[in-house]
Amino acid sequence: MKAYLISIGDEILIGQTVNTNVAYIAAKLVEHNVFVSKTSVIGDNYDQIMNEFKTAYEECDLVVVTGGLGPTHDDITRKCVVDFFDTELVHDEGVLEDIKSLFTKKGRELTDLNKDQALIPKIATPVKNYFGTAPGIWIEKKKKYFAVFPGVPYEMKEMVNDFLVPKVSDLLSGKMGNKIITNVLTTGIPESVLYEKIGSIDELLNGSKMAFLPNQFGVKLRLTIEEDDEESAKNKLLEIEQKLRGKVGRYIYGKDEDTLESVIAKIMTERGLTLATAESCTGGLVSNFITNISGSSKFFERGVVTYSNAAKVEILSVNEDIIHKHGAVSLEVARQMAEGIKATSCADIGLSTTGIMGPTGATGEKKVGLVYVGLCDENICTAKKFTFGDDRLLNKDRTAQAALEMLRRHLLGISYDE
Amino acid sequence: MKAYLISIGDEILIGQTVNTNVAYIAAKLVEHNVFVSKTSVIGDNYDQIMNEFKTAYEECDLVVVTGGLGPTHDDITRKCVVDFFDTELVHDEGVLEDIKSLFTKKGRELTDLNKDQALIPKIATPVKNYFGTAPGIWIEKKKKYFAVFPGVPYEMKEMVNDFLVPKVSDLLSGKMGNKIITNVLTTGIPESVLYEKIGSIDELLNGSKMAFLPNQFGVKLRLTIEEDDEESAKNKLLEIEQKLRGKVGRYIYGKDEDTLESVIAKIMTERGLTLATAESCTGGLVSNFITNISGSSKFFERGVVTYSNAAKVEILSVNEDIIHKHGAVSLEVARQMAEGIKATSCADIGLSTTGIMGPTGATGEKKVGLVYVGLCDENICTAKKFTFGDDRLLNKDRTAQAALEMLRRHLLGISYDE
Repeated sequence: MKAYLISIGDEILIGQTVNTNVAYIAAKLVEHNVFVSKTSVIGDNYDQIMNEFKTAYEECDLVVVTGGLGPTHDDITRKCVVDFFDTELVHDEGVLEDIKSLFTKKGRELTDLNKDQALIPKIATPVKNYFGTAPGIWIEKKKKYFAVFPGVPYEMKEMVNDFLVPKVSDLLSGKMGNKIITNVLTTGIPESVLYEKIGSIDELLNGSKMAFLPNQFGVKLRLTIEEDDEESAKNKLLEIEQKLRGKVGRYIYGKDEDTLESVIAKIMTERGLTLATAESCTGGLVSNFITNISGSSKFFERGVVTYSNAAKVEILSVNEDIIHKHGAVSLEVARQMAEGIKATSCADIGLSTTGIMGPTGATGEKKVGLVYVGLCDENICTAKKFTFGDDRLLNKDRTAQAALEMLRRHLLGISYDE
Repeated sequence: MKAYLISIGDEILIGQTVNTNVAYIAAKLVEHNVFVSKTSVIGDNYDQIMNEFKTAYEECDLVVVTGGLGPTHDDITRKCVVDFFDTELVHDEGVLEDIKSLFTKKGRELTDLNKDQALIPKIATPVKNYFGTAPGIWIEKKKKYFAVFPGVPYEMKEMVNDFLVPKVSDLLSGKMGNKIITNVLTTGIPESVLYEKIGSIDELLNGSKMAFLPNQFGVKLRLTIEEDDEESAKNKLLEIEQKLRGKVGRYIYGKDEDTLESVIAKIMTERGLTLATAESCTGGLVSNFITNISGSSKFFERGVVTYSNAAKVEILSVNEDIIHKHGAVSLEVARQMAEGIKATSCADIGLSTTGIMGPTGATGEKKVGLVYVGLCDENICTAKKFTFGDDRLLNKDRTAQAALEMLRRHLLGISYDE
């Protein structure tokens, strides 16, 4: 089954909205062996929408459209669907009930605008919207499938999981393939160095495919394996993974949906260890990543964001003389911050960050991008220097990632230096 | 000038990468009066790339391609460009020098793979890459323009700012239009209520256009104004904005690139006020948003993430009996957290969050999505209840946004309740 994803909305074309929907839907479809051959973004324009519906419907088996279902005047997707399938709008009592109960739950009054959202194309099945008022639309015609979901990501996601995924699974039941796509996640090593360390790609892959996908958090290695049957594909994957681990294992922190924080959470929870963080330059980003993990309260004791020197001295007992002598951005202060948060929180491990994120803050020999990460447990108290770039938000991301990676390697006894 | 954006990369089609590049490029082009009529995503597939190049080159004046320029075997965009323009690759000494100096700066050794990146299509101008090894490509032919940039966002962004934007400005000099696109940003009010409060759209707009763009942070109102000359467009915008402020002013926190944190930073810095945060459920997200603002160290004194009850008691002097009586997620604890962080930090304002982000943590009558935000200054100490949904990360975002909005309204003397 081949899919074509269409996103409708001027807001994407003029760059006001990042189109996260496509990635979400594509990932879900791929998991269920539906491959997206193309995606496009077009404006809230009747002719352009009708043309794109036509192209997509001709080229693919499944068309998934997002956007333009809202209650206001600028949303025209539903009208286009009606015209494209040459049908009409009819009132759906079930949808109206859903909308009413949503309003009751939120304690708000129903408007006429919202009532109109209970009108759906006659040949369509409405798709329940748990978080909003616009129902999704599902149309099956001549073995072709046409889905329309709201552009609001959390509304769309719920419909994809609750409706589209089971639907697609049903349609494809018994047709599951022997293709595996999986990501091996690395961090702390540049793409070209990783490439060289891996050595002969052909020998490693023996017919399978691998792509290098770098971003600020590291390099993803996407493996695509296709064999005669599922068993062989799984064995082949295992073989490649083992070889990869033999060559660059220290940089591999996980697979697919793993994040450094989820990997760390698992290890710390299993071992019954607790963590506390003392952040300066990352401003809470490290603890934010950690607390994104459900259940993090089991091991994450507390965090402090000591942005001012006074806070570093008062909360973390960092030595004032050390700050004056070495500066707040220094190996010594990073170490003392980690030591201080470990001591005051009684957590097993203290993790700290201090650095210059830019664009301002550089002084003499200390340039924007200079970062120190500190780590203390009952045995050691250490810190490490990193040099990142000029972009503030990118530097925060990279510093947080470096701190989490330092913690991961510490937990696993992997030395940081080669 | 009409533009067509093509993103190349299987990683987008299988949903492993969110395509943020398109939004970035489109926004920059729109600022300079180039309108994106369509964007597409296709795979690392020779035939598909060649076809898409053809369509885009025929339909538009400017084609911007991103992705597939990396040093590894899976990147084929450069080869497609060579074939599409029927040219050949030539060595560029300037590009090689750039690559060498990048490696020297990072203290890494040059690999053969990186050296090959100094090969560029003969008819192209190379575009300097400040952050990576793959140069961009710029081709002008028969008044059509073809740009190819790396898919890595920060590399692409630098090229867009440093090269594409000045280039496009040059090409269009003297052709600046009389069209203004601007966003009015609202928060704390649902789309349909906002719509009703605004009343007659036609009367408000008098021929201009407005779109409602909701996300978890609020509803953006995108205004598109086109008049005979720039002056009239500006006046029209001013008029609409004033009318909007008259109707829903309390919910409007800014325009365009503004964020709640940037608006707050401006007010607090101007007034010489300082802030400290005490976060439980948001886990550092509030302080992370605040410290995304360059210069936030001027007003942000410190933050604590008191995930455990012990931390709440020890650091913030929250009364243990109150925790036992009302629970850690309660109006009383939110208030005491805000009071505690204000007192210990000596900041002018203390801001706190406590809540149940899910999926676990619900108890009896306290459901996932229940949140309290506390705020204290020298005059008042208050807290407010919010009810959000079931999604952990969405709940963190919404809680952080609610806390920042509570602070903004407090600073501006806007009451939270209508």
